[in-house]
Amino acid sequence: MESIRQSDPLYIGIDLGGTNIKAGLVNPAGKVLARVSVVTGRGPETVIGNMVAAAHGVLKTARKTPEDITAVGVASPGPLSTSRGVVLRSANLPGWENVPLRDRISTELGKPAILENDARSAAFGEYWGGSGRSTGARDFLMITLGTGVGGGFVHDGKLVSGAHDMAGEIGHTIVLPGGEQCGCGQKGCLEVYTAASRLGRRARLMIREQGRRNSTLRSVLERDGMITARDVEQEARSGDTLAQEIWEDMCRMLALACVNAVHWLDPKMIVLAGGMAGAGDFLVDPVKRYFSEQYWHMSAPEVEIRTAELGNDAGVVGAAMLAMQLHTK
Amino acid sequence: MESIRQSDPLYIGIDLGGTNIKAGLVNPAGKVLARVSVVTGRGPETVIGNMVAAAHGVLKTARKTPEDITAVGVASPGPLSTSRGVVLRSANLPGWENVPLRDRISTELGKPAILENDARSAAFGEYWGGSGRSTGARDFLMITLGTGVGGGFVHDGKLVSGAHDMAGEIGHTIVLPGGEQCGCGQKGCLEVYTAASRLGRRARLMIREQGRRNSTLRSVLERDGMITARDVEQEARSGDTLAQEIWEDMCRMLALACVNAVHWLDPKMIVLAGGMAGAGDFLVDPVKRYFSEQYWHMSAPEVEIRTAELGNDAGVVGAAMLAMQLHTK
Repeated sequence: MESIRQSDPLYIGIDLGGTNIKAGLVNPAGKVLARVSVVTGRGPETVIGNMVAAAHGVLKTARKTPEDITAVGVASPGPLSTSRGVVLRSANLPGWENVPLRDRISTELGKPAILENDARSAAFGEYWGGSGRSTGARDFLMITLGTGVGGGFVHDGKLVSGAHDMAGEIGHTIVLPGGEQCGCGQKGCLEVYTAASRLGRRARLMIREQGRRNSTLRSVLERDGMITARDVEQEARSGDTLAQEIWEDMCRMLALACVNAVHWLDPKMIVLAGGMAGAGDFLVDPVKRYFSEQYWHMSAPEVEIRTAELGNDAGVVGAAMLAMQLHTK
Repeated sequence: MESIRQSDPLYIGIDLGGTNIKAGLVNPAGKVLARVSVVTGRGPETVIGNMVAAAHGVLKTARKTPEDITAVGVASPGPLSTSRGVVLRSANLPGWENVPLRDRISTELGKPAILENDARSAAFGEYWGGSGRSTGARDFLMITLGTGVGGGFVHDGKLVSGAHDMAGEIGHTIVLPGGEQCGCGQKGCLEVYTAASRLGRRARLMIREQGRRNSTLRSVLERDGMITARDVEQEARSGDTLAQEIWEDMCRMLALACVNAVHWLDPKMIVLAGGMAGAGDFLVDPVKRYFSEQYWHMSAPEVEIRTAELGNDAGVVGAAMLAMQLHTK
């Protein structure tokens, strides 16, 4: 760990997921100097114990002690209250109700702590230590395309959490009024058209119910019993018409959300993250093309659209750097 | 002017419109202590002269001198650069190109000055001195329904201008992909469905081309040669089916934009302003109803939707208070 300067204040970021807890030691530049991952477990007490153990594990890995740490940031699924530091409930954390996670972690580790939503933490991490850092974009939007679709917006270097800690629910902005039913109760949400989990489902429906049986995705379905977003991407790359159609539709809806993001927020940069962002230019190029097609003629588009740099570290980095913003030594 | 305390720092706000220039003397609470209005005129030199004269007129009206003023805020149609203080061009100001309006006003009046977009200034004015003031909402969205549809978003007490001074173009967020053509080049913009200028036009088309000839709006059209948004409102109030249909459609689209605003920004309050907001509860009640119908089931809506308090003063107040934020004595 020779790369850690003695003078640098250091921060721990803990990213609480439904399956795994990730913890990292982060320097003020947003660089992860050491990281650990443990299984989340069940029930608040077990999970909090595992989070504390992960933090100690990170310190041990980096040959540091709690004295070397200035503050701790926690990223958690929501809904939650950032001001009170409480997880209200969570579909991904069974049995959690009104858990004062921030103060519990703070007490256990003897350090000031902050609590933020996982998707917004990741956006802030990517802003601070990823593509935002390398480009100096202080108005920055990240859209994360995973099982669901989430995100976060940074305005003038500060994360926007909203009046009720609900800002950045980009997946549930309505892109097609009266469109397909979303699990949230709305119709035509962005998530319905762009979530990884929905692409395979759409392919399956089109093969089974709309007779698109000459697609190569049919063999994938027969071989694996399912179709993933990655399958759709690969078959689209290989030239399958149905896969291309589904991929292009997804890119067009995503581009529409980007047009609306520009009119609402005018970010300097829109970063696409999550599993599907692994497609790289195969995702970004059509999104840019549909963006230009749908964007107004009043001025040329100035926003930069690209994929994320940090990957799985984003939540840890964001939580740690939010802790730094609030608690400087 | 006995109400002006000697100790209060004072600011001048100048709201430059295509037809009139409004100037006002504003105290730190966002109260307009004196106001004047003059015709705008044509060409940058004439207009700047008129703006300076309006500022001097306000001082004279309030029995003040330039020494009593801390700073001046200018609200102008755009596009413009807030950082450089330059009006790039404007459909409403013929002959304007790259006019360094902020520095010209600053030099002429001998005071520090700021330049901001008119719609965003009005939103900040309403936030500071209108409904935002009375409710303490620090995350605040205003949607102005006029000839066009614009607005502005205040996050944590600061106006969001965006990376390229383009934030808050709410009228050009797309609410119906592939919908009606907008003058901006996009299809299905919010403005197409909610601008005052569009309601009458829609009524006319439905009477003439879709045979809706038993509407009372037909008599209005025959009497006046045109139908205004106010006519649609009044006939809808009187029970005319076509007018009600048009009014309700407008409210439903506006509510959809509010749902999306909540998911993007999570404001504490959404304020409806502009001429059509004069309809009061006849506008707000159906917007709230359609909001609830379209909003997700994951949590109850917490945003407050209401009409603006400041009316025509909003731009003057906002410009003056933005000048105060940047230039405190």
